[in-house]
Amino acid sequence: MITNNLKQWQQRAQAQTEILLERALPSINQAPETLHEAMRYVTLGGGKRLRPLLVWAAAELGDSVQAACEAAAVAVECIHVYSLVHDDMPAMDNDSLRRGKPTCHVQYDEPTALLVGDALQTLAFDVLSTATALSPARQIRMINVLAKASGSMGMAGGQAIDLANVGVDLSQIQLEQMHGWKTGALIRAAVALGALSCPDLDDNALAALDNYATKLGLAFQVIDDVLDCEADTATLGKTAGKDAEANKPTYVKLMGLTAAREYANTLIQQAIDALQLFDERADRLRQLAEFVVIRKN
Amino acid sequence: MITNNLKQWQQRAQAQTEILLERALPSINQAPETLHEAMRYVTLGGGKRLRPLLVWAAAELGDSVQAACEAAAVAVECIHVYSLVHDDMPAMDNDSLRRGKPTCHVQYDEPTALLVGDALQTLAFDVLSTATALSPARQIRMINVLAKASGSMGMAGGQAIDLANVGVDLSQIQLEQMHGWKTGALIRAAVALGALSCPDLDDNALAALDNYATKLGLAFQVIDDVLDCEADTATLGKTAGKDAEANKPTYVKLMGLTAAREYANTLIQQAIDALQLFDERADRLRQLAEFVVIRKN
Repeated sequence: MITNNLKQWQQRAQAQTEILLERALPSINQAPETLHEAMRYVTLGGGKRLRPLLVWAAAELGDSVQAACEAAAVAVECIHVYSLVHDDMPAMDNDSLRRGKPTCHVQYDEPTALLVGDALQTLAFDVLSTATALSPARQIRMINVLAKASGSMGMAGGQAIDLANVGVDLSQIQLEQMHGWKTGALIRAAVALGALSCPDLDDNALAALDNYATKLGLAFQVIDDVLDCEADTATLGKTAGKDAEANKPTYVKLMGLTAAREYANTLIQQAIDALQLFDERADRLRQLAEFVVIRKN
Repeated sequence: MITNNLKQWQQRAQAQTEILLERALPSINQAPETLHEAMRYVTLGGGKRLRPLLVWAAAELGDSVQAACEAAAVAVECIHVYSLVHDDMPAMDNDSLRRGKPTCHVQYDEPTALLVGDALQTLAFDVLSTATALSPARQIRMINVLAKASGSMGMAGGQAIDLANVGVDLSQIQLEQMHGWKTGALIRAAVALGALSCPDLDDNALAALDNYATKLGLAFQVIDDVLDCEADTATLGKTAGKDAEANKPTYVKLMGLTAAREYANTLIQQAIDALQLFDERADRLRQLAEFVVIRKN
């Protein structure tokens, strides 16, 4: 399954993620049909699948239990997609375009978008609590890692801080705290879950990987701000210039475009440095780190 | 801890639930402060706590692991409160009063209400995945039961069907299917979680309890419709006559007030009959069933 070429590996892992999500999502022939259709509309057929890719890549470091790893890939993506659906709603960012398609509340309606997000969050924990060959104790740890990363002192909390700071000038430290929760927490969880699916990876390995994921998550957000400023809407698949227009604090606003790009490169180097204790089995994680700074959307 | 008097037991169990929820919810001194304040506003200081009471009462049937039982009581109430917060939002039922207080989006704002619901759902799975003396395999089963009960083929799905059927004449079978998901699923999960916290309760016991909980959940909904028709807003603590006014299908509309009350009594008798295999340790569940039909709000 492993190939040296990142792009090929990415495409195969993305295709595999799509198949697993397709299986995990309820059928549109199962009531409530419209809710299930909308859950599939927002989840399938798009997205970089960065978080599942990180799960697969981290799982390559040890003897991963396949079913636990697959459940983790599905679960992190369900949490990510739920957050996008709720963030796009009129009460939040009020966005109409996501992954090149109308957002959920535009394609369907607001009540459906609310319930799609709610049910996708639940599905993440449903999938992750289905029995696998991994020890139940380690599986519970996976569930707890995902819950902590998603909650009020993780992703949802980061979104709350983001909303509270529209029009506010944040320092770099404050901006990093906010993003550390809003996007960083789930990226760290993805890497941790992949590693936890390997019974042979100990807490030392997990700590090094968490260091890697923290730097990577930050770099990802810096580049997001750069792309929001540089790219056009067609390339991004979501509305460009939205954050600047909404007067949200961004890295580009804080340090300028060139310095932001340089900062992202520094963070990626730090992420790669954090993998020193691993052999070539960490190459996929190293390649993904480099991919994060050269991506176009 | 057990007293023969239901009211005394209820008050003690409610007080204990309040203490546990208070401990499980993040402090208002912890960022994001407003989100945490709002999470506490909607969760603490009100509510019948029917679902936690069912957890405690079911746990009396066996040798319950205290920490697992407490986690279950907190988790089911977090899921219930999250559903109330989202259901009350303008995109859904657009209600302004809940448990005698302004609803979350009225007291705070819509983005906060959205995130409060999201974060409370996550908190449920966070609490339930904290290690206890219960076997991890049984603990995972508890998590899976709660996830299945809450998702698109449980509580969230029931809400979707409810919204889709405003102004539609449902048959009794269709009405029961909808309520079986919207309110029944979480009531069944509460009873199951209490029982699962007892390592000595087997699948036969769980099946009998599920039969009890199914009838109880249905009776609860029938009485809800009766109260929505009979009681005034002050007694209910939420807007009275709302469902009839919103042209939602109700049992009262379907069968009339007297027949609805009689039907509730029949269901409660069936619930109590389902407990035949248990001794006096099931008396609390029997009393709670009777309480459901005599309650005033």
